Amino acid sequence: MNLLNSLNFSAGPGALPESVLLQAQQAIIEVPDVGLSILGISHRTDWFESVVAELENNIRTLLELADNYHILFLQGGTTQQFSMIPMTLLRGKTSPAEYLHTGYWSDKAITEAKREGPVREIWSGKSGGYRRLPADDELRFAPDAPYLHYISNETVEGLQFHRVLGRDDVPRVCDMSSDFLSQPCEANRFSLIYAHAQKNIGPAGVTVVLIRDELLQGTPTDLPGFLDYRNHVQAHSNYNTPPVFAIYVVLLITRWLLTEIGGLANMAAINRNKAELMYRLLDNSNDFYRGRVQPQDRSLMNVTFNLSCPEKENRFLAEAQAAGFSGLAGHRSTGGVRASLYNGLTLAAVEQLTGFMEDFQRRHHQ
Amino acid sequence: MNLLNSLNFSAGPGALPESVLLQAQQAIIEVPDVGLSILGISHRTDWFESVVAELENNIRTLLELADNYHILFLQGGTTQQFSMIPMTLLRGKTSPAEYLHTGYWSDKAITEAKREGPVREIWSGKSGGYRRLPADDELRFAPDAPYLHYISNETVEGLQFHRVLGRDDVPRVCDMSSDFLSQPCEANRFSLIYAHAQKNIGPAGVTVVLIRDELLQGTPTDLPGFLDYRNHVQAHSNYNTPPVFAIYVVLLITRWLLTEIGGLANMAAINRNKAELMYRLLDNSNDFYRGRVQPQDRSLMNVTFNLSCPEKENRFLAEAQAAGFSGLAGHRSTGGVRASLYNGLTLAAVEQLTGFMEDFQRRHHQ
Repeated sequence: MNLLNSLNFSAGPGALPESVLLQAQQAIIEVPDVGLSILGISHRTDWFESVVAELENNIRTLLELADNYHILFLQGGTTQQFSMIPMTLLRGKTSPAEYLHTGYWSDKAITEAKREGPVREIWSGKSGGYRRLPADDELRFAPDAPYLHYISNETVEGLQFHRVLGRDDVPRVCDMSSDFLSQPCEANRFSLIYAHAQKNIGPAGVTVVLIRDELLQGTPTDLPGFLDYRNHVQAHSNYNTPPVFAIYVVLLITRWLLTEIGGLANMAAINRNKAELMYRLLDNSNDFYRGRVQPQDRSLMNVTFNLSCPEKENRFLAEAQAAGFSGLAGHRSTGGVRASLYNGLTLAAVEQLTGFMEDFQRRHHQ
Repeated sequence: MNLLNSLNFSAGPGALPESVLLQAQQAIIEVPDVGLSILGISHRTDWFESVVAELENNIRTLLELADNYHILFLQGGTTQQFSMIPMTLLRGKTSPAEYLHTGYWSDKAITEAKREGPVREIWSGKSGGYRRLPADDELRFAPDAPYLHYISNETVEGLQFHRVLGRDDVPRVCDMSSDFLSQPCEANRFSLIYAHAQKNIGPAGVTVVLIRDELLQGTPTDLPGFLDYRNHVQAHSNYNTPPVFAIYVVLLITRWLLTEIGGLANMAAINRNKAELMYRLLDNSNDFYRGRVQPQDRSLMNVTFNLSCPEKENRFLAEAQAAGFSGLAGHRSTGGVRASLYNGLTLAAVEQLTGFMEDFQRRHHQ
């Protein structure tokens, strides 16, 4: 297998499991039992209908999701969802939707929501450089908010909520782009969950939306057709030509989660082990590697840290690249180092990285 | 090579050239000179920037496109463009945009445009079952229309304009989804051209938009970010995570057009030969195969025809499928037979199909 793929710590599009890549590769020439290239199969075939049906079913199984949720596969990424959600749930409302402002992506979600209706930021980490998440006693949730929106894992900063927020009588809307299907998530406590594929579950180009049926009842009637969730529900994600290949790869990932990994509890255990390995190294490095965020809010997906100065960081990144590790540079808004440990990245790869980091520290500890 | 792929007459996603499929397959494991799977490469890498730059340049070369056009690679398909165009060019206008209503897809474009502003259908083929296109003397173009919109090739019905319509002083907006890069198209006479990839130039999941810079100057300021062309222009199609793999395959197709085919004039000659082979057979079949549309409006891309009765059509489709031809069933709105002859389909494949059709006629001519 390709060594570089196995050491791909990119924040997204991120590493995918080897067995899935091999099946995707095969499908480019010939989808098993169909005989055609996946790039040339019509989205109106029985085969593609069965792909969508199996994928919906796999996600329902993995999350133990109730039947009153629709599962959609859309284009446009989370950016499109940042708009579709307030178009659907906030237009014409007088009481504000509640948004948590916990990082770079929250900021973007809030900007788009404000175009559509009233928004209240119930907490912001912006002035503190997004280095922590709020504690429960810092949050007051209004009972009359149309919905609460937050991001479960802030990819850029490496912050992750390790609990479900909000009130049971206000719809919870959550961007789980960077931790979806990385662990169980109490999905039935949310009214809408969305996640683009390119972190844990597939390539760029498709976004999964889980939406409780009752949430669609107040949809404005004048939305452009492709921005109306009801059209996608009715058409089973085939309202207009869907990204067939990307959806197929997500199906392969869910099969891998169900059969090779054995479900989300197992996936969570693996992901926890990977993250613990990294954070233990940071904590034992005598401040050589400095975690960016408050320990109790650390992400299991994106481990962000700094070295003592930018020169040392650059040297670290260059040596890591030369040693075969890729994708470790921090987001352009924060700098530093970020190791993304998505589902497709193995524990062995993390062990190689921590080995490299220990060695680097030995050589540069002065 | 896979035999079924070579006989794929699907209307879209459609057949792609064998050499492109082989390169796409390789990239799933390892992109040459990068070493990583294309499904796990960040869209913020220098490599992806160079992919977009080369692809823009290739399209500019193939179409001899002037420098004042932006070239964008977006998600959402033509369906999203049906809305983005009137959002950008029609909101708040009092004089109507002019739309030609020439088929199934025109109908959808008009429905979405009407949500955004005034629309005048300057010709409709609906009552006649979309079996012909208008002649020049049936069309009057207003000088004060914000723009003229038409579809160069109606995929469902098999109708194609073989001339450029409209006035030089009114922006021409054209959906070229099913004939883009199948032939030269006088691109510089249009203000906006759009085309999803899944006919002639790639897999489903990406849409090409060519837009003249001056057209963006009146863009409303309150559009959701992802529906504002200016954001995509500014970010070089990297406003939010683009569909990396689909864009890469479109790059491979443009390389194939430039080097293996030798440009759009050559591609057009091949496509014309393929279509002529089909239409000659229909015309010489003594009404056994009956073309759906008026001869002068016949599409070079989608050859639509009927047999004398549905039973015979079903038998034809079943025998064709059994003989290895796929994707020949007509659109669900029209029935009948449709052979799509996109760039990726070879002349040899069409010769095999016409051979099969002659044989079928011999066996069923009574």
